[in-house]
Amino acid sequence: MSVSRPSVHPVEAPPLTEVAAQNALRVRMKDVQGMPGTAGSLLLRLCQLVCAGVSLAVMASTNDFPSVTAFCYLVAAVSLQCLWSLSLAIVDLYAISVRRSLRNCKLVCFFAIGDGITSTLTFSAACASAGITVLIANDLNKCDQNHCKRFESATAMAFISWFVVSPSFLLNFWSLASR
Amino acid sequence: MSVSRPSVHPVEAPPLTEVAAQNALRVRMKDVQGMPGTAGSLLLRLCQLVCAGVSLAVMASTNDFPSVTAFCYLVAAVSLQCLWSLSLAIVDLYAISVRRSLRNCKLVCFFAIGDGITSTLTFSAACASAGITVLIANDLNKCDQNHCKRFESATAMAFISWFVVSPSFLLNFWSLASR
Repeated sequence: MSVSRPSVHPVEAPPLTEVAAQNALRVRMKDVQGMPGTAGSLLLRLCQLVCAGVSLAVMASTNDFPSVTAFCYLVAAVSLQCLWSLSLAIVDLYAISVRRSLRNCKLVCFFAIGDGITSTLTFSAACASAGITVLIANDLNKCDQNHCKRFESATAMAFISWFVVSPSFLLNFWSLASR
Repeated sequence: MSVSRPSVHPVEAPPLTEVAAQNALRVRMKDVQGMPGTAGSLLLRLCQLVCAGVSLAVMASTNDFPSVTAFCYLVAAVSLQCLWSLSLAIVDLYAISVRRSLRNCKLVCFFAIGDGITSTLTFSAACASAGITVLIANDLNKCDQNHCKRFESATAMAFISWFVVSPSFLLNFWSLASR
Protein backbone atom coordinates (compact mmCIF):
# COMPACT_ATOMS: atom_id res chain seq x y z
CA MET A 1 0.00 0.00 0.00
CA SER A 2 1.38 3.33 -0.98
CA VAL A 3 0.98 5.94 1.67
CA SER A 4 1.36 9.51 0.71
CA ARG A 5 4.38 10.72 2.55
CA PRO A 6 4.27 14.41 3.10
CA SER A 7 7.86 15.38 3.00
CA VAL A 8 9.20 18.79 3.70
CA HIS A 9 11.72 20.22 1.25
CA PRO A 10 13.17 23.20 2.99
CA VAL A 11 13.96 25.97 0.51
CA GLU A 12 17.36 27.39 1.03
CA ALA A 13 17.08 30.81 2.56
CA PRO A 14 18.92 33.54 0.63
CA PRO A 15 21.96 34.90 2.44
CA LEU A 16 20.12 37.98 3.61
CA THR A 17 22.04 39.06 6.64
CA GLU A 18 25.03 40.90 5.16
CA VAL A 19 23.22 42.39 2.18
CA ALA A 20 20.31 43.46 4.35
CA ALA A 21 22.64 45.04 6.85
CA GLN A 22 24.49 46.86 4.08
CA ASN A 23 21.22 48.01 2.54
CA ALA A 24 19.94 49.25 5.86
CA LEU A 25 23.19 51.10 6.42
CA ARG A 26 23.14 52.62 2.94
CA VAL A 27 19.52 53.68 3.21
CA ARG A 28 20.12 55.24 6.58
CA MET A 29 23.16 57.15 5.33
CA LYS A 30 22.02 58.33 1.91
CA ASP A 31 18.25 58.23 1.64
CA VAL A 32 17.63 61.87 2.53
CA GLN A 33 14.06 62.97 1.77
CA GLY A 34 14.16 65.15 -1.34
CA MET A 35 16.73 63.12 -3.25
CA PRO A 36 15.50 61.46 -6.46
CA GLY A 37 13.19 58.53 -5.93
CA THR A 38 11.87 59.57 -2.51
CA ALA A 39 8.44 60.81 -1.51
CA GLY A 40 9.99 64.16 -0.53
CA SER A 41 11.36 64.57 -4.03
CA LEU A 42 7.95 63.80 -5.55
CA LEU A 43 6.36 66.41 -3.26
CA LEU A 44 8.99 69.02 -4.27
CA ARG A 45 8.42 68.26 -7.97
CA LEU A 46 4.64 68.62 -7.61
CA CYS A 47 5.08 71.96 -5.80
CA GLN A 48 7.40 73.18 -8.56
CA LEU A 49 4.92 72.05 -11.19
CA VAL A 50 1.98 73.81 -9.52
CA CYS A 51 3.88 77.10 -8.93
CA ALA A 52 5.32 77.22 -12.45
CA GLY A 53 1.93 76.27 -13.90
CA VAL A 54 0.11 79.02 -11.98
CA SER A 55 2.75 81.57 -13.03
CA LEU A 56 2.40 80.51 -16.67
CA ALA A 57 -1.41 80.62 -16.56
CA VAL A 58 -1.55 84.06 -14.89
CA MET A 59 1.01 85.60 -17.25
CA ALA A 60 -0.62 84.06 -20.34
CA SER A 61 -4.03 85.38 -19.24
CA THR A 62 -2.87 88.98 -19.78
CA ASN A 63 -3.27 90.02 -23.39
CA ASP A 64 -0.31 92.42 -23.53
CA PHE A 65 2.54 90.27 -22.27
CA PRO A 66 4.04 89.71 -25.77
CA SER A 67 4.87 93.42 -26.01
CA VAL A 68 7.53 93.08 -23.28
CA THR A 69 10.49 90.78 -23.96
CA ALA A 70 11.03 89.95 -20.27
CA PHE A 71 7.45 88.66 -19.91
CA CYS A 72 7.84 86.47 -23.02
CA TYR A 73 11.05 85.11 -21.49
CA LEU A 74 9.17 84.41 -18.24
CA VAL A 75 6.51 82.45 -20.13
CA ALA A 76 9.19 80.42 -21.92
CA ALA A 77 11.17 79.76 -18.71
CA VAL A 78 8.20 78.62 -16.60
CA SER A 79 6.97 76.44 -19.48
CA LEU A 80 10.33 74.69 -19.50
CA GLN A 81 10.17 74.43 -15.70
CA CYS A 82 6.72 72.83 -15.94
CA LEU A 83 7.92 70.24 -18.47
CA TRP A 84 11.05 69.41 -16.45
CA SER A 85 9.20 69.11 -13.13
CA LEU A 86 6.44 67.02 -14.72
CA SER A 87 8.99 64.61 -16.22
CA LEU A 88 10.87 64.24 -12.94
CA ALA A 89 7.62 63.81 -10.99
CA ILE A 90 6.72 60.91 -13.32
CA VAL A 91 10.21 59.40 -12.86
CA ASP A 92 9.89 59.73 -9.06
CA LEU A 93 6.41 58.19 -9.11
CA TYR A 94 7.74 55.25 -11.14
CA ALA A 95 10.74 54.81 -8.82
CA ILE A 96 8.52 54.87 -5.73
CA SER A 97 5.92 52.48 -7.17
CA VAL A 98 8.46 49.83 -8.23
CA ARG A 99 10.73 50.63 -5.24
CA ARG A 100 13.69 51.29 -7.48
CA SER A 101 16.64 53.33 -6.31
CA LEU A 102 17.73 56.31 -8.43
CA ARG A 103 21.10 56.50 -6.69
CA ASN A 104 22.93 56.07 -10.02
CA CYS A 105 25.85 58.51 -10.39
CA LYS A 106 25.09 59.46 -14.00
CA LEU A 107 21.38 59.89 -13.28
CA VAL A 108 22.03 62.15 -10.28
CA CYS A 109 24.52 64.16 -12.36
CA PHE A 110 21.88 64.56 -15.11
CA PHE A 111 19.25 65.63 -12.58
CA ALA A 112 21.65 68.12 -10.95
CA ILE A 113 22.57 69.72 -14.29
CA GLY A 114 18.92 69.87 -15.38
CA ASP A 115 17.83 71.38 -12.06
CA GLY A 116 20.67 73.88 -12.24
CA ILE A 117 19.73 75.02 -15.74
CA THR A 118 15.96 75.23 -15.17
CA SER A 119 16.31 76.96 -11.80
CA THR A 120 18.75 79.52 -13.23
CA LEU A 121 16.41 80.22 -16.15
CA THR A 122 13.35 80.54 -13.90
CA PHE A 123 15.20 82.81 -11.47
CA SER A 124 16.57 85.08 -14.18
CA ALA A 125 13.14 85.36 -15.81
CA ALA A 126 11.55 86.15 -12.46
CA CYS A 127 14.16 88.84 -11.75
CA ALA A 128 13.72 90.44 -15.16
CA SER A 129 9.94 90.44 -14.76
CA ALA A 130 10.28 91.87 -11.26
CA GLY A 131 12.43 94.69 -12.65
CA ILE A 132 9.79 95.53 -15.27
CA THR A 133 6.92 95.21 -12.79
CA VAL A 134 8.57 97.56 -10.30
CA LEU A 135 9.36 99.99 -13.14
CA ILE A 136 5.72 100.06 -14.26
CA ALA A 137 4.16 100.15 -10.79
CA ASN A 138 6.56 102.30 -8.73
CA ASP A 139 8.78 104.30 -11.07
CA LEU A 140 6.28 105.19 -13.82
CA ASN A 141 2.97 104.76 -11.91
CA LYS A 142 1.21 103.29 -14.94
CA CYS A 143 -0.80 100.59 -13.22
CA ASP A 144 -4.05 101.98 -14.61
CA GLN A 145 -2.99 101.03 -18.17
CA ASN A 146 -1.38 97.69 -17.27
CA HIS A 147 -2.26 94.43 -15.50
CA CYS A 148 0.05 95.17 -12.57
CA LYS A 149 -1.61 92.69 -10.22
CA ARG A 150 -1.32 89.84 -12.67
CA PHE A 151 2.28 90.67 -13.57
CA GLU A 152 3.15 90.75 -9.88
CA SER A 153 1.35 87.47 -9.17
CA ALA A 154 3.06 85.71 -12.08
CA THR A 155 6.46 87.03 -10.97
CA ALA A 156 5.86 85.99 -7.36
CA MET A 157 4.83 82.47 -8.39
CA ALA A 158 7.94 82.18 -10.57
CA PHE A 159 10.08 83.19 -7.57
CA ILE A 160 8.35 80.59 -5.37
CA SER A 161 8.88 78.00 -8.11
CA TRP A 162 12.61 78.83 -8.15
CA PHE A 163 12.67 78.65 -4.36
CA VAL A 164 11.23 75.12 -4.49
CA VAL A 165 13.64 73.96 -7.22
CA SER A 166 16.69 75.05 -5.21
CA PRO A 167 16.46 72.25 -2.58
CA SER A 168 16.30 69.64 -5.36
CA PHE A 169 19.37 71.12 -7.02
CA LEU A 170 21.36 71.49 -3.79
CA LEU A 171 20.50 67.97 -2.61
CA ASN A 172 21.49 66.45 -5.96
CA PHE A 173 24.69 68.46 -6.06
CA TRP A 174 25.46 67.53 -2.46
CA SER A 175 24.88 63.81 -3.04
CA LEU A 176 27.04 64.04 -6.17
CA ALA A 177 29.89 65.70 -4.26
CA SER A 178 29.70 63.48 -1.18
CA ARG A 179 29.93 60.12 -2.97
CA MET B 1 92.85 78.06 33.48
CA SER B 2 89.40 78.04 32.08
CA VAL B 3 89.26 77.00 28.48
CA SER B 4 86.18 77.71 26.54
CA ARG B 5 84.82 74.40 25.57
CA PRO B 6 82.73 74.63 22.49
CA SER B 7 80.14 72.01 23.02
CA VAL B 8 77.52 71.02 20.53
CA HIS B 9 74.01 70.72 21.83
CA PRO B 10 72.15 68.95 19.11
CA VAL B 11 68.62 70.27 18.79
CA GLU B 12 66.11 67.50 18.61
CA ALA B 13 64.70 67.28 15.11
CA PRO B 14 60.93 67.54 15.00
CA PRO B 15 59.22 64.29 14.04
CA LEU B 16 58.58 65.44 10.49
CA THR B 17 58.11 62.25 8.56
CA GLU B 18 54.53 61.31 9.39
CA VAL B 19 53.16 64.84 9.57
CA ALA B 20 54.91 65.81 6.35
CA ALA B 21 53.59 62.74 4.60
CA GLN B 22 50.07 63.46 5.84
CA ASN B 23 50.35 67.09 4.77
CA ALA B 24 51.62 66.12 1.34
CA LEU B 25 48.76 63.67 0.98
CA ARG B 26 46.21 66.21 2.11
CA VAL B 27 47.55 68.92 -0.16
CA ARG B 28 47.60 66.58 -3.11
CA MET B 29 44.04 65.46 -2.51
CA LYS B 30 42.32 68.74 -1.69
CA ASP B 31 44.36 71.66 -2.93
CA VAL B 32 42.36 72.38 -6.08
CA GLN B 33 43.20 75.75 -7.63
CA GLY B 34 40.35 78.14 -6.88
CA MET B 35 39.72 76.98 -3.33
CA PRO B 36 40.41 79.56 -0.58
CA GLY B 37 44.07 80.26 0.03
CA THR B 38 45.31 79.31 -3.45
CA ALA B 39 46.66 81.52 -6.23
CA GLY B 40 43.69 80.51 -8.41
CA SER B 41 41.29 81.80 -5.77
CA LEU B 42 43.17 85.12 -5.57
CA LEU B 43 42.96 85.43 -9.37
CA LEU B 44 39.22 84.71 -9.31
CA ARG B 45 38.68 87.29 -6.55
CA LEU B 46 40.63 89.96 -8.45
CA CYS B 47 38.59 89.26 -11.62
CA GLN B 48 35.35 89.55 -9.62
CA LEU B 49 36.56 92.79 -8.09
CA VAL B 50 37.50 94.33 -11.45
CA CYS B 51 34.24 93.30 -13.19
CA ALA B 52 32.03 94.47 -10.33
CA GLY B 53 34.03 97.70 -10.04
CA VAL B 54 33.71 98.45 -13.76
CA SER B 55 29.97 97.72 -13.64
CA LEU B 56 29.58 100.06 -10.64
CA ALA B 57 31.63 102.83 -12.25
CA VAL B 58 29.78 102.67 -15.59
CA MET B 59 26.32 102.62 -13.98
CA ALA B 60 27.19 105.41 -11.54
CA SER B 61 28.50 107.55 -14.41
CA THR B 62 24.96 107.85 -15.87
CA ASN B 63 23.06 110.68 -14.22
CA ASP B 64 19.57 109.11 -14.50
CA PHE B 65 20.10 105.70 -12.90
CA PRO B 66 18.35 106.65 -9.61
CA SER B 67 15.04 107.02 -11.46
CA VAL B 68 14.88 103.25 -12.07
CA THR B 69 14.71 100.96 -9.04
CA ALA B 70 16.43 98.06 -10.82
CA PHE B 71 19.49 100.20 -11.62
CA CYS B 72 19.74 101.35 -7.99
CA TYR B 73 19.55 97.72 -6.95
CA LEU B 74 22.35 96.90 -9.43
CA VAL B 75 24.55 99.61 -7.94
CA ALA B 76 23.92 98.28 -4.42
CA ALA B 77 24.53 94.66 -5.43
CA VAL B 78 27.80 95.27 -7.28
CA SER B 79 29.01 97.50 -4.43
CA LEU B 80 28.47 94.61 -2.03
CA GLN B 81 30.18 92.29 -4.50
CA CYS B 82 33.18 94.63 -4.66
CA LEU B 83 33.50 94.74 -0.87
CA TRP B 84 33.16 90.96 -0.51
CA SER B 85 35.65 90.18 -3.29
CA LEU B 86 38.13 92.74 -1.95
CA SER B 87 37.95 91.25 1.56
CA LEU B 88 38.43 87.71 0.29
CA ALA B 89 41.28 88.79 -2.00
CA ILE B 90 43.05 90.25 1.04
CA VAL B 91 42.42 87.05 3.01
CA ASP B 92 43.80 84.97 0.12
CA LEU B 93 46.83 87.21 -0.22
CA TYR B 94 47.51 86.85 3.52
CA ALA B 95 47.06 83.07 3.37
CA ILE B 96 49.42 82.76 0.39
CA SER B 97 52.09 85.05 1.87
CA VAL B 98 52.25 83.24 5.22
CA ARG B 99 51.55 79.83 3.58
CA ARG B 100 48.59 79.21 5.82
CA SER B 101 45.89 76.76 4.88
CA LEU B 102 42.27 77.95 4.86
CA ARG B 103 40.94 74.39 4.85
CA ASN B 104 38.99 75.04 8.08
CA CYS B 105 35.43 73.68 7.90
CA LYS B 106 33.76 76.72 9.46
CA LEU B 107 35.74 79.13 7.28
CA VAL B 108 34.85 77.26 4.07
CA CYS B 109 31.20 77.18 5.18
CA PHE B 110 31.29 80.96 5.78
CA PHE B 111 32.91 81.57 2.38
CA ALA B 112 30.37 79.31 0.63
CA ILE B 113 27.41 81.11 2.23
CA GLY B 114 28.89 84.55 1.48
CA ASP B 115 29.62 83.61 -2.13
CA GLY B 116 26.13 82.17 -2.50
CA ILE B 117 24.48 85.34 -1.20
CA THR B 118 26.60 87.84 -3.17
CA SER B 119 26.41 85.84 -6.40
CA THR B 120 22.63 85.51 -6.10
CA LEU B 121 22.27 89.25 -5.46
CA THR B 122 24.57 90.18 -8.37
CA PHE B 123 22.81 87.79 -10.72
CA SER B 124 19.32 89.00 -9.78
CA ALA B 125 20.39 92.64 -10.17
CA ALA B 126 21.95 91.89 -13.54
CA CYS B 127 18.78 90.11 -14.71
CA ALA B 128 16.53 92.95 -13.56
CA SER B 129 18.77 95.52 -15.29
CA ALA B 130 18.84 93.38 -18.43
CA GLY B 131 15.03 93.30 -18.43
CA ILE B 132 14.86 97.10 -18.20
CA THR B 133 17.62 97.61 -20.76
CA VAL B 134 15.91 95.33 -23.30
CA LEU B 135 12.61 97.10 -22.60
CA ILE B 136 14.13 100.53 -23.27
CA ALA B 137 16.23 99.53 -26.28
CA ASN B 138 14.11 96.95 -28.11
CA ASP B 139 10.50 97.21 -26.94
CA LEU B 140 10.17 101.00 -26.58
CA ASN B 141 13.02 102.16 -28.89
CA LYS B 142 13.94 105.05 -26.59
CA CYS B 143 17.70 104.85 -26.82
CA ASP B 144 17.92 108.46 -28.00
CA GLN B 145 16.71 109.69 -24.58
CA ASN B 146 18.66 107.17 -22.47
CA HIS B 147 22.22 105.97 -21.95
CA CYS B 148 21.51 102.57 -23.51
CA LYS B 149 25.16 101.73 -24.19
CA ARG B 150 26.19 102.43 -20.62
CA PHE B 151 23.26 100.51 -19.15
CA GLU B 152 24.11 97.57 -21.40
CA SER B 153 27.80 97.70 -20.50
CA ALA B 154 27.08 97.85 -16.76
CA THR B 155 24.65 94.93 -17.04
CA ALA B 156 27.12 92.87 -19.07
CA MET B 157 29.92 93.48 -16.56
CA ALA B 158 27.59 92.47 -13.72
CA PHE B 159 26.80 89.23 -15.56
CA ILE B 160 30.53 88.54 -16.07
CA SER B 161 31.12 89.27 -12.39
CA TRP B 162 28.43 86.71 -11.45
CA PHE B 163 29.98 84.24 -13.90
CA VAL B 164 33.35 84.60 -12.13
CA VAL B 165 31.84 84.26 -8.63
CA SER B 166 30.12 80.98 -9.51
CA PRO B 167 33.31 78.84 -9.63
CA SER B 168 34.30 80.12 -6.16
CA PHE B 169 30.88 79.22 -4.78
CA LEU B 170 30.73 75.80 -6.46
CA LEU B 171 34.28 74.88 -5.37
CA ASN B 172 33.60 75.92 -1.76
CA PHE B 173 30.28 74.06 -1.73
CA TRP B 174 31.93 71.00 -3.29
CA SER B 175 34.78 70.95 -0.76
CA LEU B 176 32.23 71.38 2.02
CA ALA B 177 30.16 68.43 0.77
CA SER B 178 33.08 66.14 0.02
CA ARG B 179 34.79 66.34 3.40
